[in-house]
Amino acid sequence: MGVHRNFILLLTVTLTFVTCNVSNSKIEDACNLSAELKAEIASYSSTVEKIINAAVDGSFKGVTYQELSLFVDTFGNRIAGSQNLENAIDYMIDKYTADGFDNVHGEEVQVPHWVRGSESAILVEPRNATLSILGLGTSVGTPPEGILAEVLVVKSFDDLQSKAGQAKGKIVVYNEDFDSYFSAVVYRSNGATEAAKVGAVASLIRSMTDFSLNTPHTGLQSYEENVTKIPGAAITIEDAHLLQRLQDEGKTIKMLLKMEAQNLPDTTSRNLVAEIEGTEYPEKVVIVSGHIDSWDVGEGAMDDGGGVFISWGALALLKSLGLKAKRTVRSIFWTAEEFGYVGAYQYAIDHANETDNLIFMMESDFGTFNPIGLEYSAGTTGGCILQEVMKLLASINATGTRQSPAVGSDIEIWTSDGVPGASLDTESEKYFWYHHSNADTLEAESTDYLDKNTALWASVAYVLADLSIDFPRETTDG
Amino acid sequence: MGVHRNFILLLTVTLTFVTCNVSNSKIEDACNLSAELKAEIASYSSTVEKIINAAVDGSFKGVTYQELSLFVDTFGNRIAGSQNLENAIDYMIDKYTADGFDNVHGEEVQVPHWVRGSESAILVEPRNATLSILGLGTSVGTPPEGILAEVLVVKSFDDLQSKAGQAKGKIVVYNEDFDSYFSAVVYRSNGATEAAKVGAVASLIRSMTDFSLNTPHTGLQSYEENVTKIPGAAITIEDAHLLQRLQDEGKTIKMLLKMEAQNLPDTTSRNLVAEIEGTEYPEKVVIVSGHIDSWDVGEGAMDDGGGVFISWGALALLKSLGLKAKRTVRSIFWTAEEFGYVGAYQYAIDHANETDNLIFMMESDFGTFNPIGLEYSAGTTGGCILQEVMKLLASINATGTRQSPAVGSDIEIWTSDGVPGASLDTESEKYFWYHHSNADTLEAESTDYLDKNTALWASVAYVLADLSIDFPRETTDG
Repeated sequence: MGVHRNFILLLTVTLTFVTCNVSNSKIEDACNLSAELKAEIASYSSTVEKIINAAVDGSFKGVTYQELSLFVDTFGNRIAGSQNLENAIDYMIDKYTADGFDNVHGEEVQVPHWVRGSESAILVEPRNATLSILGLGTSVGTPPEGILAEVLVVKSFDDLQSKAGQAKGKIVVYNEDFDSYFSAVVYRSNGATEAAKVGAVASLIRSMTDFSLNTPHTGLQSYEENVTKIPGAAITIEDAHLLQRLQDEGKTIKMLLKMEAQNLPDTTSRNLVAEIEGTEYPEKVVIVSGHIDSWDVGEGAMDDGGGVFISWGALALLKSLGLKAKRTVRSIFWTAEEFGYVGAYQYAIDHANETDNLIFMMESDFGTFNPIGLEYSAGTTGGCILQEVMKLLASINATGTRQSPAVGSDIEIWTSDGVPGASLDTESEKYFWYHHSNADTLEAESTDYLDKNTALWASVAYVLADLSIDFPRETTDG
Repeated sequence: MGVHRNFILLLTVTLTFVTCNVSNSKIEDACNLSAELKAEIASYSSTVEKIINAAVDGSFKGVTYQELSLFVDTFGNRIAGSQNLENAIDYMIDKYTADGFDNVHGEEVQVPHWVRGSESAILVEPRNATLSILGLGTSVGTPPEGILAEVLVVKSFDDLQSKAGQAKGKIVVYNEDFDSYFSAVVYRSNGATEAAKVGAVASLIRSMTDFSLNTPHTGLQSYEENVTKIPGAAITIEDAHLLQRLQDEGKTIKMLLKMEAQNLPDTTSRNLVAEIEGTEYPEKVVIVSGHIDSWDVGEGAMDDGGGVFISWGALALLKSLGLKAKRTVRSIFWTAEEFGYVGAYQYAIDHANETDNLIFMMESDFGTFNPIGLEYSAGTTGGCILQEVMKLLASINATGTRQSPAVGSDIEIWTSDGVPGASLDTESEKYFWYHHSNADTLEAESTDYLDKNTALWASVAYVLADLSIDFPRETTDG
């Protein structure tokens, strides 16, 4: 779809951080929406209030949390390649089908099948200590007896280059700064490869988070062709700092790293599609989405159970209120997002000739905390329309809009090619506390926030799917 | 010392929460300190400023953190009975001796020797999941093959009684509320015994904390005589809630619990004493203290590395400034606090005839966060004196005093018998995030806060040791 996959692999969620400095007021100044269109949008206020009331204080109150809870309690985490993921997809297909949604089906995708196995990192010098680690997705394992080697701590790739002469035969530990996920995640993606290039035997990164209670965080890494594949794992902030201090104190550091990680043959998974068909233009589609796979730790309740269940909730809430829009509202649960938008890429290929009918694409993959509004990728007129639409969310204080060159994670495949779209914008300051860790459980979710997010998701999807005009597809001009 | 040991065992740190509603202003109204005494205390302001300046902006700036860092990096955690603890004590004896302190020595104590071994809890029904656990101190282990049993979740001891008929042969999980450590810790202390009484085969408690990132917290438990000893461990908040939900959903829950925990014969440890001898009344003593043992997880940097090192720092700072008080300032590093003030009890026995010379006892065992002031156990006049003394700490905003019927942990043995004392009062809202967990590392500490706490500790100890009058020993009348 015009965006190089490796580039996308690197970016995943991160691009949501790179927002343009286009203030709302500046956009508003540039807005030349017709009085008729503004009035038309405003006329949805009673419908949106009905949606909001049902979600936050009525028949749908608490339902999103309750269903998410039942789902994660039943299946736990759901890594690509696992039977657990397929069971979870079957469950959701059955659920959508039983509730009478339109066009409910799975669409097959070949996905990676990486298994962690058991893993450990024991500090053996200068003193004995067990470090908490999580191997990184796609990492190879160690030999069964493990890798016993000296440790070299570096602060950056530049620092690694300056110490390249010392790296041979060592376990390189990246104690990189976490100024942002975007700036740090290259160490997770490429750390093992860069370490291997200078002769290291394994690579450990400091986990991608700004706060830890001895919490390691996994995530995707990749290998470069023709470079030796060495094991890659994440250690905690605490241990990265410890190793840095020990090195700074001049101590010799030795570690025994054992990882059973294996890359098995690809397996078949499915993207899951369900719809409320449009009454007038069923071929035209507004999409609400999240990804149903997770990492193999915690419960995948935040990443991305929340995104999946507000997308389910948006459809279920609209249906419960008898709201059918002129255009189709489609929910998609992407599969294997965590391995680089694998499901979404397949969907893009399989539906390449339907792109013109993708009116607006929404994805929630940055947490379902207290909602602020939307982060969007659209042109000026589109931004103006969204501003008007979001005014309808005033009663839940989620009227914000901010333009971004890249939104969502899976939907970035389309938005980067000019399809308008948006990701959910929430008070996500603690997102990385939980992200890709065993702490990603239902505790990261709140019933009230989920209700508000379901209301927002349903409202925006309904209004954009029902407007008299198609959402304008313009070049992003922010 | 007049307080029943089992009572103390239960209370440990917790009593710091039970503070009296005696506002500062109320005490101030009741203050009838002589103008001379108030003037005398105020006359220490230049000395205290010198202490503070050295600690927060001078020659001692950063030293407490640096020394604590070196200590925990070198030894890691230090459970009673371990060689690690004895090595750490030797290191500190050497350090005090090399720096020329007075009367540096260890005093032998027989301490419990509990070893954790490996441990695991696997949820096998209704789905497979590995739970993070920490066995509780003094717990027995399971048979080598583990205990495979159904789970019964209860909210309280009352709830357990109401479900007593269902408990036989089961693993009881206490999903107790954590309104406070004080109200919750009885489940850690007595959970296994109470569960055994109704026929349970093991006992799991929800960890003693208000926030978790999949973080289990260990701590002391005890067995009642003539009740079957069953294994006791802590699970995370997340998993306690998960098990509660699964039970509420009507699911059968089965778990395989394996613990290698063993109680070995007592070993010899030491309380560590070092002093700056008083110039006029060397037999009269003001004590600054913390405990040098920790649990066998994390690094014991907060509990109680911080307390130990501000006590070391107080002496080192006074010495570096050439400040010798009229009375002796003694630092004590208690051993085996975590097993019920074992070192402190031995000290009380060994020094029973010196109690009258214990002028004022200080202990820091509730974190060394940003200091607020002191929590004290003393009579009205004592409280009034402390208020005047703490005014000297205005430049670091740590002038607070609050009366409590029970302060400290080890020193409670004496303060409950009328010896005046105080514990450090800090912004400890996050104390239980780290407490007794693998997250108790140097990350919980701050170099600036340690500097301020060392300054406070040194200032109060010096002034109280140097005043023209002995700190008054009155019945606590709050």
